[in-house]
Amino acid sequence: MGRLSRPPNPTLFRLVYGPQLASDRSLVLPYLLRIDAAHVVMLDTERLLKRDVAAALLRVNREIAVRLARGHDVLGSPPTHRGLYMLYEQQYIEHLGNDAGGAAHVARSRNDINATVARMRLREEMCGLLSVWCALLDAMRSLADSHRETVMAGFTHLQPAQPTSFGHYLAGVTSELVRSAEWLAGTFDCVNCSPMGAAAGFGTSFAVDRVQVAELLGFRTIIENSADAVASRDYLVQVLSALAVLGTSITRFATDLQAWSSAAYGFLDWPDDLVSTSSIMPQKRNAFVLETIRGEAIHSIGALVNTLAGMKNAPFSNSVEVSAEASAHVWPALSAGRKALELLTLMVQQIEIRPARMRAFLGDAGTTMTAVADLLVARHGLGFRVAHEAVAKFAAEPPGLSAADAKARLEIILREVGPEPVIIDEGALAIALDPEGCVRRATYGGGPAPETVRRQLQGLARRLEQLRARISRWQQQLADADARLDAAADAICESRSLGEGLDVLDQ
Amino acid sequence: MGRLSRPPNPTLFRLVYGPQLASDRSLVLPYLLRIDAAHVVMLDTERLLKRDVAAALLRVNREIAVRLARGHDVLGSPPTHRGLYMLYEQQYIEHLGNDAGGAAHVARSRNDINATVARMRLREEMCGLLSVWCALLDAMRSLADSHRETVMAGFTHLQPAQPTSFGHYLAGVTSELVRSAEWLAGTFDCVNCSPMGAAAGFGTSFAVDRVQVAELLGFRTIIENSADAVASRDYLVQVLSALAVLGTSITRFATDLQAWSSAAYGFLDWPDDLVSTSSIMPQKRNAFVLETIRGEAIHSIGALVNTLAGMKNAPFSNSVEVSAEASAHVWPALSAGRKALELLTLMVQQIEIRPARMRAFLGDAGTTMTAVADLLVARHGLGFRVAHEAVAKFAAEPPGLSAADAKARLEIILREVGPEPVIIDEGALAIALDPEGCVRRATYGGGPAPETVRRQLQGLARRLEQLRARISRWQQQLADADARLDAAADAICESRSLGEGLDVLDQ
Amino acid sequence: MGRLSRPPNPTLFRLVYGPQLASDRSLVLPYLLRIDAAHVVMLDTERLLKRDVAAALLRVNREIAVRLARGHDVLGSPPTHRGLYMLYEQQYIEHLGNDAGGAAHVARSRNDINATVARMRLREEMCGLLSVWCALLDAMRSLADSHRETVMAGFTHLQPAQPTSFGHYLAGVTSELVRSAEWLAGTFDCVNCSPMGAAAGFGTSFAVDRVQVAELLGFRTIIENSADAVASRDYLVQVLSALAVLGTSITRFATDLQAWSSAAYGFLDWPDDLVSTSSIMPQKRNAFVLETIRGEAIHSIGALVNTLAGMKNAPFSNSVEVSAEASAHVWPALSAGRKALELLTLMVQQIEIRPARMRAFLGDAGTTMTAVADLLVARHGLGFRVAHEAVAKFAAEPPGLSAADAKARLEIILREVGPEPVIIDEGALAIALDPEGCVRRATYGGGPAPETVRRQLQGLARRLEQLRARISRWQQQLADADARLDAAADAICESRSLGEGLDVLDQ
Amino acid sequence: MGRLSRPPNPTLFRLVYGPQLASDRSLVLPYLLRIDAAHVVMLDTERLLKRDVAAALLRVNREIAVRLARGHDVLGSPPTHRGLYMLYEQQYIEHLGNDAGGAAHVARSRNDINATVARMRLREEMCGLLSVWCALLDAMRSLADSHRETVMAGFTHLQPAQPTSFGHYLAGVTSELVRSAEWLAGTFDCVNCSPMGAAAGFGTSFAVDRVQVAELLGFRTIIENSADAVASRDYLVQVLSALAVLGTSITRFATDLQAWSSAAYGFLDWPDDLVSTSSIMPQKRNAFVLETIRGEAIHSIGALVNTLAGMKNAPFSNSVEVSAEASAHVWPALSAGRKALELLTLMVQQIEIRPARMRAFLGDAGTTMTAVADLLVARHGLGFRVAHEAVAKFAAEPPGLSAADAKARLEIILREVGPEPVIIDEGALAIALDPEGCVRRATYGGGPAPETVRRQLQGLARRLEQLRARISRWQQQLADADARLDAAADAICESRSLGEGLDVLDQ
Repeated sequence: MGRLSRPPNPTLFRLVYGPQLASDRSLVLPYLLRIDAAHVVMLDTERLLKRDVAAALLRVNREIAVRLARGHDVLGSPPTHRGLYMLYEQQYIEHLGNDAGGAAHVARSRNDINATVARMRLREEMCGLLSVWCALLDAMRSLADSHRETVMAGFTHLQPAQPTSFGHYLAGVTSELVRSAEWLAGTFDCVNCSPMGAAAGFGTSFAVDRVQVAELLGFRTIIENSADAVASRDYLVQVLSALAVLGTSITRFATDLQAWSSAAYGFLDWPDDLVSTSSIMPQKRNAFVLETIRGEAIHSIGALVNTLAGMKNAPFSNSVEVSAEASAHVWPALSAGRKALELLTLMVQQIEIRPARMRAFLGDAGTTMTAVADLLVARHGLGFRVAHEAVAKFAAEPPGLSAADAKARLEIILREVGPEPVIIDEGALAIALDPEGCVRRATYGGGPAPETVRRQLQGLARRLEQLRARISRWQQQLADADARLDAAADAICESRSLGEGLDVLDQ
Repeated sequence: MGRLSRPPNPTLFRLVYGPQLASDRSLVLPYLLRIDAAHVVMLDTERLLKRDVAAALLRVNREIAVRLARGHDVLGSPPTHRGLYMLYEQQYIEHLGNDAGGAAHVARSRNDINATVARMRLREEMCGLLSVWCALLDAMRSLADSHRETVMAGFTHLQPAQPTSFGHYLAGVTSELVRSAEWLAGTFDCVNCSPMGAAAGFGTSFAVDRVQVAELLGFRTIIENSADAVASRDYLVQVLSALAVLGTSITRFATDLQAWSSAAYGFLDWPDDLVSTSSIMPQKRNAFVLETIRGEAIHSIGALVNTLAGMKNAPFSNSVEVSAEASAHVWPALSAGRKALELLTLMVQQIEIRPARMRAFLGDAGTTMTAVADLLVARHGLGFRVAHEAVAKFAAEPPGLSAADAKARLEIILREVGPEPVIIDEGALAIALDPEGCVRRATYGGGPAPETVRRQLQGLARRLEQLRARISRWQQQLADADARLDAAADAICESRSLGEGLDVLDQ
Repeated sequence: MGRLSRPPNPTLFRLVYGPQLASDRSLVLPYLLRIDAAHVVMLDTERLLKRDVAAALLRVNREIAVRLARGHDVLGSPPTHRGLYMLYEQQYIEHLGNDAGGAAHVARSRNDINATVARMRLREEMCGLLSVWCALLDAMRSLADSHRETVMAGFTHLQPAQPTSFGHYLAGVTSELVRSAEWLAGTFDCVNCSPMGAAAGFGTSFAVDRVQVAELLGFRTIIENSADAVASRDYLVQVLSALAVLGTSITRFATDLQAWSSAAYGFLDWPDDLVSTSSIMPQKRNAFVLETIRGEAIHSIGALVNTLAGMKNAPFSNSVEVSAEASAHVWPALSAGRKALELLTLMVQQIEIRPARMRAFLGDAGTTMTAVADLLVARHGLGFRVAHEAVAKFAAEPPGLSAADAKARLEIILREVGPEPVIIDEGALAIALDPEGCVRRATYGGGPAPETVRRQLQGLARRLEQLRARISRWQQQLADADARLDAAADAICESRSLGEGLDVLDQ
Repeated sequence: MGRLSRPPNPTLFRLVYGPQLASDRSLVLPYLLRIDAAHVVMLDTERLLKRDVAAALLRVNREIAVRLARGHDVLGSPPTHRGLYMLYEQQYIEHLGNDAGGAAHVARSRNDINATVARMRLREEMCGLLSVWCALLDAMRSLADSHRETVMAGFTHLQPAQPTSFGHYLAGVTSELVRSAEWLAGTFDCVNCSPMGAAAGFGTSFAVDRVQVAELLGFRTIIENSADAVASRDYLVQVLSALAVLGTSITRFATDLQAWSSAAYGFLDWPDDLVSTSSIMPQKRNAFVLETIRGEAIHSIGALVNTLAGMKNAPFSNSVEVSAEASAHVWPALSAGRKALELLTLMVQQIEIRPARMRAFLGDAGTTMTAVADLLVARHGLGFRVAHEAVAKFAAEPPGLSAADAKARLEIILREVGPEPVIIDEGALAIALDPEGCVRRATYGGGPAPETVRRQLQGLARRLEQLRARISRWQQQLADADARLDAAADAICESRSLGEGLDVLDQ
């Protein structure tokens, strides 16, 4: 092509052009076809291309699209080539001759085309991923709702801390995951901008209508500066960051679930079709899927690093290092993230909770000590630190005292530490020592009281609904644009050649 | 404290508590004082604390704040301790006795306090960083505006590509940096939420008013779920991601500037007070600051990795691993990012452009070949690929042909490749071969035509203004909240004890 | 299998077992066959398996191996399954019945098998990668040798610094790359240890001979502790670290080459079959392969991060998170690293150096100023700092002074700065001002004098030879072990059943 | 200095030179003094400096060193400057005048000096870190030895797997940590090479003796190529990689310890001076130090990323981006790694094991099922898979059956699955069902039998001893070199000026 007298070196072909085409055929060509159609429609509208040439190009475009959809090999398999675009254009030249066949490439470049393909592909992947994410969030929200009254020990530093409910815990994790999903969704507008018209990064003297192309391709808007349009890939970092937050959040959740499904806790389990056994240890039931989930979930961290490192010290212009190499990491990360989400959804849907085991664990875990201290403050007017000191002493007692014994013991302790003797209300103490009671009373501060958790979940449900609505809206916009482009192309294909001069000739 | 019979092990004190306090004194204590005041005001409002106790606590709070502001050592230097909070509370106990002195810690925990401190500190740092960022963007925008007509070679893959202007290039980089600044600003709302009331992560049975505390501390809203409030640090990843994008963008810009300041290009330079020479090579003038900038700019990448890795597989609850360890990486990254921004601002402000060198370089760089091909399409009706092939042949000629010679040579080439002979318009060809003309005509597609760049810069200026307005609004909100809190505390301090019973006792 | 009443959940099958098998068929099965054979031979030797059972198992093993080598589908395509191992064992059971077919799994587990497969696969990949690496180093060494006298400007901070040769520069880069190759090679012994016998991580009560299995599989030694054997994957970090150093070193080299091939320098170029042009800019010749190389070279950084993050906070035991998920990143990183090495070798082999351009650039680059200062010290007895100050002033003169003019100017300057007047030796000054002379005299401190570089390259050649010898030795050891295992298996297959009791029964 | 007419810009001074000097004073200056002394001694030996000048320089050097050791401010506090080196040289000029004071900088540059300082500083830090690491390994080895007979459940995927001992587990972790320590130690030789003589990266025409300088500074050897000497920092990646492996290994160990110290397991604990309680939950005893350890341990991952990213696409030459910026990350990572090691050593030394809780947990964990399957193979001749199937059925029984009941149940199951009825040896079955017995018999495959673990620990002790010996040897070599340098400098200082001409003048 152009100045080059020779096809690519065979080693270069074997390692670069060959393998690249294999994936470009299925992953890039469909978008290239749409971009090409939109560009030609615009050139026609702006009278930068003769109507009959535009129509001929669009007919070939349609034919290739149809054959591709039917699974045909639309590019042939030449023994050597310089990548998808040149092979693609070659199809036009074979149909329409060198002059008309190569006419569409006015006021564009592979640089802006590649930049556009990546964004079109990414916005579809994002819609897909967010839908899967919403499914997980629904499953979690629903599980949380069922377990608003399933009392369990809350932990900090792995030690029993205060009574809570499994629903409250789940609502907490779900809150973070909803927030991250919203954050990812918040990057969609940044992705959904059209670089077309930037050409090689320096715009064009042809009077192109960038906005029309953007609309035909379903983009929200255009990228104003042509250097920015081809050089920047900041949105990849935005998307991967959201995936990385998702990933680490998922590992935290999956770590808790796996601990609680272990024999030491026995709080939860899964049916046989979601656990594995051992090839050697016949008794084993391993929730290994949680380990797979954790592994897949964090692919995005390395992808993020590679994307950032790939951009580091690259010139601010179109660059293979950025637009091809650094940009390649987002796809496997999206796929791994999606896999983690789907598997986790399955695990959440199929989880089997063992409330009795949760309740039994609370028995001697001492988690009500904060409630006892709170009682001393609220009912008996002690300062909190004094109450805390007293209850710390009390907590060293063997668990399972009756309320009467507890009262007696506490009163003795209070006489040692406190300013004056206190007569403890035995009934109130019995309630404070009761985990269910603690949970019921933890109405404030976002605590586990069932009603409080219900309100939290309602809030999350509303946000989830809004998120789904946004995704639907985006998908509808893409579908509408597709229809618009098809209609515009059809109109041109079916029109008679108008025979007039082109505006381009008067430039 | 509490159940523990012994002070911390000396090694633990030497490695953990000791060094931690050194930085907590200046970086955490000021926020702790505000949080404490807001919490006590709320406890008073909700009648969860006796008015006289509240007043006494707030008086001590005010006194400590005053002494701290004067640079006093307000905590003493005990030979051993268990960290800032306990030392802080000890001050109250020394003033007010064990009962009243320790009374403020009702319905709160170090967990929600720490979570709150981090957010308060971060939002201030963010305002500062964004202000510095805006200063850079202003300097870049202004430099770009001055160089809308400074024609230079545009590059791709480091090779001369098409004529552009230095202003257009700068507008492109500025576009990306504005977008990243907006992205960072977009995380502010997520940071600016109050965890207070979550206590240890399980809420409370005391009827606290979380919204009041949030308002007194200038927070936009509260975090609903108490587990989420103490366990999540997702906002750190949000902030660090934006810093990492900033960092890589800066390295790209600084890489270009350094290349162009090298002897091989000589496009730009800096005054003596911004370059270094060599201890051994007397002729050297090194723009080493650009290397410092690149190095500082990417600190955030490692910090991001450490934050993500630190969260990975941590239980979803309060955890030193997350709330202290993984959270510690954001501060040095912010400081390095800020340093990179300040240094880059200085370099942009002081840059000396050499338009003559830029223009001379264009002389034989062949950057107008696209314009020639475009001419063949626009004026002479050739298909673009045919025109491209012809000009590729023409581009192999030695540079510097007169328009007449160029016309002759092109016509010969066109006879070889084209479908039919073409008579080229010599005047139009002369214009196409002129870099200034190319730039002037590149009006479309976001290209470098001065008027187009002016519009791009106007758009950026508007967005920058909006960004500044947001930052000012946030800073005002924080100042307002401070004033509100002071007033509320003063009112309590000055009121007489009302002698009534507390609501807390009726709980 | 075992306790599980149901096949895997269809979603689990679709996302995990299904895709995993697709790659395990080609990448794991060949190693599994060898491990299985070695284990059975050992069980036979130790009389832990009846001779006729061992022979039957080995015959099936051989048959599967033969069919696999012929490209047959040896596992069938069952609609659902639980992964490669179970399908593999199923083949034996189908041939030999449940009893004999499942008899080989004594004293082993999928845990130690998987750990062993990874090491066998990695050591082969390492040999391959190191061979490719050596080819690059040979090409670089040879190019450096051809250009020991190709004088060019040496740069620091991108500014011309002192005269050097292209050969000296290349010798420097090659030195670092040889060192990194040796570092990678240094991890081979750590990789080449056998986990077999560790079973699930808790050893076995069967009197297995681990050393025999290790020898039959070509391992250097065994891993002593069974928990370590199945839990540790530290060698992955070792290998990936060496790849990451390689990667960053390559980016530095490729950055320099691309800069020097740009129009601004024109020091080097490549033939048409290694550059690309532009779809829109007909004059372009882009050394884009260097960008591809840089992108591929740093895959290892993200892989390293993912491997480390994947291991973080995983229990120290066999774990899918570590042994499958975190371990999966090494393979694509190896493949990308190899691609970068092969492409770079090609670019080095085909490079076209332009000595005249290099020499012309030196003309006014002021790179001999250090030599002038050195002359003032060496010949005229000035202290270095005084000489440096004087030459710094001199360096501000326009370039290209004659020796006589330079002498005059310098003497004036020296009268201003120096302690006493100096009469400069004009002949010596002329030599100092001559870049070729500077290079020739830079004999010390590892400088670019051709003879000095020759000695550096000889040293590198010797180390490279030693490295190649190590790789050959490893490959021979693996081949020898293969032959040994085949012979041992053949001997058992061909023996008659001996009918004696098994030692295992007396245990 | 040199060509520069102005001091650094105040902002540059505030952000770069100022802060840098603050740390260079204590961290770089001591090494600079040694390097300077060695260089001058060599210049004297090679007759490149007059004896009286050399003596004068060395006397100032000694004086500065003495004053520095006494804590004096030896550089003054000038209002502006260009960094440590220039201030340092200024001291000489003030004492000796411009001519002699600046005479030492012949044949050297800040480039090779900085490269040398980093290596000197690093090798000391490495010796320190490895010593601390050895202390941990000793503590672990010793703890493991004490618990070779402390039977506990071994886990995989967090589920009870097979009986093991705490000593066996510890020996496994220790094995990996010893290997990583050896790997780090293996990088010492690469660090311990002298760049001196490379000057700015292009060697010198002065007949310096690099080997002498290297020996006086305790280096093992020199770096042959001068470009390599100043451009490469690959050893930083080597060191950080070893720290990163250490870090992740430590997180795995600390994760297990924290899980086992939780209430759900209760296997181990620490005294009060190593746990924390809660400010709100009086019953809490948190092993939070393990979380601190995990956080500190992984600093190296981000540092590694920053070092690699910092080098990416930097020119291969001396560069602030690499030699200052990218190199800065190793120091905090070393310090965090050391902190993690020291804290973990403390936790290992003070750990309190609860063997009774470990034993009780084994009661109904089903960990002996593999042993039962093994029995069916070893004693009753079943194929392993058949035995495994049978025992999987048996494992579903409630735990705690008597041997007689177990025998009866197993025989029934075997009739269902097996080829023919089996009469199980009840005595052997009782032994198989006994965890202690399982551990005792797991003699093979690196299993937990006490004697096997003893041998593993002996092997580790031997390697640890060798490692300590290497560290001591290095430290001795450094001390010897120091003494050698002092003696050489003293000899020169005390000699009379010899009055002869310098070789440098004949060059």
